[in-house]
Amino acid sequence: MSSDFGKMIRVSLFGESHSAAIGAVISGVPAGEYIDIEAVDAFMARRAPGQGAHTTSRREADRPVILSGIADSVTTGTPIAAMIENGDARPSDYVRFSDTPRPSHADYPALMKYGAAHDIRGGGHFSGRLTAPLCFAGAVCKQILARRGITVGAHIASVGAVRDEPFDPVGISAETLSALSEKSFTVLSGKAGERMLEEIRLAKEDGDSVGGVIECAALGLPPGVGEPIFDGVENRLAAALFGIPAVKGVEFGAGFKAAAMRGSEHNDGYVCDGGTVRARTNNGGGIAGGLTTGMPVIFRAAFKPTPSIAREQRTVNLREKKNAALIIGGRHDPCVVPRAVPCVEAAAAIVLLDLILEHHSSCKCESRVE
Amino acid sequence: MSSDFGKMIRVSLFGESHSAAIGAVISGVPAGEYIDIEAVDAFMARRAPGQGAHTTSRREADRPVILSGIADSVTTGTPIAAMIENGDARPSDYVRFSDTPRPSHADYPALMKYGAAHDIRGGGHFSGRLTAPLCFAGAVCKQILARRGITVGAHIASVGAVRDEPFDPVGISAETLSALSEKSFTVLSGKAGERMLEEIRLAKEDGDSVGGVIECAALGLPPGVGEPIFDGVENRLAAALFGIPAVKGVEFGAGFKAAAMRGSEHNDGYVCDGGTVRARTNNGGGIAGGLTTGMPVIFRAAFKPTPSIAREQRTVNLREKKNAALIIGGRHDPCVVPRAVPCVEAAAAIVLLDLILEHHSSCKCESRVE
Amino acid sequence: MSSDFGKMIRVSLFGESHSAAIGAVISGVPAGEYIDIEAVDAFMARRAPGQGAHTTSRREADRPVILSGIADSVTTGTPIAAMIENGDARPSDYVRFSDTPRPSHADYPALMKYGAAHDIRGGGHFSGRLTAPLCFAGAVCKQILARRGITVGAHIASVGAVRDEPFDPVGISAETLSALSEKSFTVLSGKAGERMLEEIRLAKEDGDSVGGVIECAALGLPPGVGEPIFDGVENRLAAALFGIPAVKGVEFGAGFKAAAMRGSEHNDGYVCDGGTVRARTNNGGGIAGGLTTGMPVIFRAAFKPTPSIAREQRTVNLREKKNAALIIGGRHDPCVVPRAVPCVEAAAAIVLLDLILEHHSSCKCESRVE
Amino acid sequence: MSSDFGKMIRVSLFGESHSAAIGAVISGVPAGEYIDIEAVDAFMARRAPGQGAHTTSRREADRPVILSGIADSVTTGTPIAAMIENGDARPSDYVRFSDTPRPSHADYPALMKYGAAHDIRGGGHFSGRLTAPLCFAGAVCKQILARRGITVGAHIASVGAVRDEPFDPVGISAETLSALSEKSFTVLSGKAGERMLEEIRLAKEDGDSVGGVIECAALGLPPGVGEPIFDGVENRLAAALFGIPAVKGVEFGAGFKAAAMRGSEHNDGYVCDGGTVRARTNNGGGIAGGLTTGMPVIFRAAFKPTPSIAREQRTVNLREKKNAALIIGGRHDPCVVPRAVPCVEAAAAIVLLDLILEHHSSCKCESRVE
Repeated sequence: MSSDFGKMIRVSLFGESHSAAIGAVISGVPAGEYIDIEAVDAFMARRAPGQGAHTTSRREADRPVILSGIADSVTTGTPIAAMIENGDARPSDYVRFSDTPRPSHADYPALMKYGAAHDIRGGGHFSGRLTAPLCFAGAVCKQILARRGITVGAHIASVGAVRDEPFDPVGISAETLSALSEKSFTVLSGKAGERMLEEIRLAKEDGDSVGGVIECAALGLPPGVGEPIFDGVENRLAAALFGIPAVKGVEFGAGFKAAAMRGSEHNDGYVCDGGTVRARTNNGGGIAGGLTTGMPVIFRAAFKPTPSIAREQRTVNLREKKNAALIIGGRHDPCVVPRAVPCVEAAAAIVLLDLILEHHSSCKCESRVE
Repeated sequence: MSSDFGKMIRVSLFGESHSAAIGAVISGVPAGEYIDIEAVDAFMARRAPGQGAHTTSRREADRPVILSGIADSVTTGTPIAAMIENGDARPSDYVRFSDTPRPSHADYPALMKYGAAHDIRGGGHFSGRLTAPLCFAGAVCKQILARRGITVGAHIASVGAVRDEPFDPVGISAETLSALSEKSFTVLSGKAGERMLEEIRLAKEDGDSVGGVIECAALGLPPGVGEPIFDGVENRLAAALFGIPAVKGVEFGAGFKAAAMRGSEHNDGYVCDGGTVRARTNNGGGIAGGLTTGMPVIFRAAFKPTPSIAREQRTVNLREKKNAALIIGGRHDPCVVPRAVPCVEAAAAIVLLDLILEHHSSCKCESRVE
Repeated sequence: MSSDFGKMIRVSLFGESHSAAIGAVISGVPAGEYIDIEAVDAFMARRAPGQGAHTTSRREADRPVILSGIADSVTTGTPIAAMIENGDARPSDYVRFSDTPRPSHADYPALMKYGAAHDIRGGGHFSGRLTAPLCFAGAVCKQILARRGITVGAHIASVGAVRDEPFDPVGISAETLSALSEKSFTVLSGKAGERMLEEIRLAKEDGDSVGGVIECAALGLPPGVGEPIFDGVENRLAAALFGIPAVKGVEFGAGFKAAAMRGSEHNDGYVCDGGTVRARTNNGGGIAGGLTTGMPVIFRAAFKPTPSIAREQRTVNLREKKNAALIIGGRHDPCVVPRAVPCVEAAAAIVLLDLILEHHSSCKCESRVE
Repeated sequence: MSSDFGKMIRVSLFGESHSAAIGAVISGVPAGEYIDIEAVDAFMARRAPGQGAHTTSRREADRPVILSGIADSVTTGTPIAAMIENGDARPSDYVRFSDTPRPSHADYPALMKYGAAHDIRGGGHFSGRLTAPLCFAGAVCKQILARRGITVGAHIASVGAVRDEPFDPVGISAETLSALSEKSFTVLSGKAGERMLEEIRLAKEDGDSVGGVIECAALGLPPGVGEPIFDGVENRLAAALFGIPAVKGVEFGAGFKAAAMRGSEHNDGYVCDGGTVRARTNNGGGIAGGLTTGMPVIFRAAFKPTPSIAREQRTVNLREKKNAALIIGGRHDPCVVPRAVPCVEAAAAIVLLDLILEHHSSCKCESRVE
């Protein structure tokens, strides 16, 4: 039933493509945290459409209005609520449900679930627009993590067949992540970025779309964060990441490649480095037994090509119960991956702050992150 | 903090490698369900060690003792508890914590989390042995799903570089899944199976281990099962699957391959098939917008090579704070993937029964699965 | 950390006395339910201040703005969000925290919990104003329950020492509850009502306040609703009711009086009444073993006198660390009980719809409430 | 569906009167806590039957077997499981369901909920015997709280019309609570105790039962513990306390008496006492706005007379659908209140440790309880 998530930090998302507003309620955020609203807006701008040739030209006024929980830029400790008004709510030519469900969209299963009363126009509650309040929540959590020495950052690992350089799983630095967040197209290699933009341009010319992979790193986590079995770092991150529309796969460290490796090749042996213990390699992506090892947490999320394409597609007319052709109008991103980078960072930041606070509840004071 | 999971069906796992017993409490199972205990035992035997040359030769008496919730082979509606006694609990040469953490095991992060009081011997609560009560819970849920026309089955998709034939994502049948569950080595292609066994034998000869991939299918789910955003079928399945030790990646349908596809190639168009609607292809793995489409649900889990290998490895001596060599004694599976097949089925069965019951809570009677 | 509640129906409340808005997100409400917005407004008006001599003369514009989840007066199945704007948000003479905590208010413990960053003015998140969005959520749930034949209604059982007639725990009818909801002062006995109003007037004259008891009934629940041990009807109702500010006690059926009774006097024997089974008496308040018996569910909530009184009170100056006198300015209800009646109904309606939906998830179709 | 409870500390109870065992899984208990097993046994002995003339003469071997989570008397940080074997499980004269439901027991609603498959003999999962594992969990939590300076203790406030002296809500000391726990009949006033025993003896002679009230105090809690609205100290304690069979009312501080008070009489003004702030009175029972004030937490739970009485009662024969007489055989406590005292302490200890750990997750280090 729910669109809410988390244990210590709970995020509840609301809204539909054509409702009056979309938004989020975030409870459990500690009191007394300064929130830089401009930095929140800058983070959300990375998700906003209309930034370049590779994105949709629709305009959205995605500035969140803070309703509660932050006073004079400081968290009060009670729930933070924010909303983003929908400019195009309640059109006069109101059609609740389309007879011809869009392939690989939520239209058909949502109709089966909720019946004709459900408002699926523009994706309804399943719209990618719901990632805007997710990014708001993530921006708040990211600032609180940063104050505790934890940095979260991501880049476009691939678009179609074009790949960026991967993160160095041992040596990746906070500076690298910080520099990435300043870029208009979030890649390590400028060359790879140009080829990705070309790939996106070609898909657009073909009235088509293209998928991609986002790689994310979290630095500064102490060892031992996470809970056993079903509440490990991997479980919680995956549970959040699959909440971003179009994500169809999640892997940690060597991930699917690990399945083809030998143990002697994959195992991350330890080494004494001055007074501290660290791993020599990081095939585990900073996680063993579901708990952080103290190495960078590294994961990747695979995005399918957006199902909204300009080409004619095969579907069915549910009213007439016969096959039909469908042309989806409007303008759509040929590739959602560039705009999804902050969404991945947001989901990760929410989960990691949640786990850090849970870690604090039982751990000794000296291992707290403050 | 928790090792428990689920919403309508809650599974709470307990136990450590060397505690008196391991087990599970499963609440929320409907009353009046006949449970075939022999079938439960047969399912759990698929996970048990000592079945062939490719598994460990240790013996475990993994027969669960049912403590409550099932009377005369019928569920009472109140919590089902089962335990498996540990034959080798409380050894006289009791060493709670090893100075030399095993690479890529939970040893080091668990020590950082719980302190020296934690009993990590044999993996403690992070041991693969905890998948035995998981399989018990899954066996119960699987029988209840089967009575509602829902079949869950898996095969070894790959070991190292050797691949089995993939499931046909559109045409996979319950008969195929049923036949697979009878096999001692769970593959579609006998040839591929022989080559996998050879791969495992080679790893063993080298004192090494090897990873693999398990592919799982669930048939018979009606369209519309799942909840929006954070409680979609993918979120919930992934959250459970990463609870199986060694899982490092999870993907649905075309998964990571979808990231390299065009939308026109990936989209699953609909077709009228007699009176019913179905998709022509199934790149989405039976899920769109987090909800089931009515097509087979298909997913894969990547397993890293087991970190317990016979070869000498590099680690640190935490007491002396210096580098050290480590040789892990005892006998270990060179490949956990064959025994992990029922674990994947179990995790899937628990999640799907949980989602079906949640679906029932709000849906109209006619779309109930009974 | 949380201000959210429930399992199938989740209610998340947000807002502070002086934030931009207060509101609620309600997820899990079934799709396709018609919501009569005028009836929602009428229900909320019963809670609104300024209705008579016995309430505060402050004006609040408590009409909720629906942000999502209801389109054309019908639920979409996805989260319902509503907000109520605070007219007097962000005053220029901004003082976040008072040096002199009000006795028996949340001021002092909230300061200890959240630090000086917390915005406690007007009660902050602990303000009685947060019951407005609670009533919104309750109004929605109440309409859905009514369509399933379940009626929830309450009356003022006492103000100070003045008592109304109690509900007849066996014979109470839906008509009685319906008639009560139309009254401006919610009592069964007009005489008792007049004496209560006099009690309130006297307290006001004295610059004082007075407490009271609200009695609530829920009719039409089938037998067997509720979950064992910690999720019984009593547990869940009590957990919600103590969320209404000033509630200090909750009892079911004979309640505290039962403690002085003999079993032979208290036990509710069964009788065959035509084809159906019912209890001869209802000392259990319609609940046995945490489950509904099919008899009216009856409970009472005790409200302390509102701590906001005009008289001088003893407190401390936290900054100067010395004793101090305090006079609370502004206008305050001398008795919150009359306005709390719909709050009690709202909390009950949310919990009962939650339990009914959970009941549906596992019960057989024939016992569903539809 | 569930018999589990809590957020940071989760307690999952399992078992039925006639299942192989009953027990508990407790997750979230911090690692490295020494648990005095003899003290656990002594605590549980206070609940065990057969202690005197006022209790049943049945014998139960209620010693818990620890299955996991405690090694060498120290918590490992992972789930603690314990079971108590049922001596009289699986009788040969197996009758699952009685045609004549016992008045004011769970028999009838449980049959309506679970159908005839449910095993209600002896109360099934609704039996008072399930309070044995609750007491085990409470005994563990109580020791951990005591190490942090928090003491929980209770006494019999009344049996029938006979009352003990009440706790002094301001001056109650840990020594008083400790002395109470040593007594075989848990009252402050020996005289009142004698009259209560006489009251119980009289009920027994009449083939009847009698109810009572238990008053509980928790000392040493810092101010600010608890979470807003639905997760306040009162909400959480009440939600747990109603899980003890026969509890029909819960009140905090002045409770129902507060409803008849004026604000000027009820308000707990503050005073500077040396360097610290405390309240002059404690009508709020140590709680304001759902948060602890630093004063003793005081609450009372009302117990109905046990419905198992020797006298003939009126019920129905469900098979023959006609009225019937019922005589309940076996021996039963004429008053469960004396044995319920540790149950109330146990429920309180679990909830308070849960809240303390949640408090730790967000609060500053200096206000942690360690």
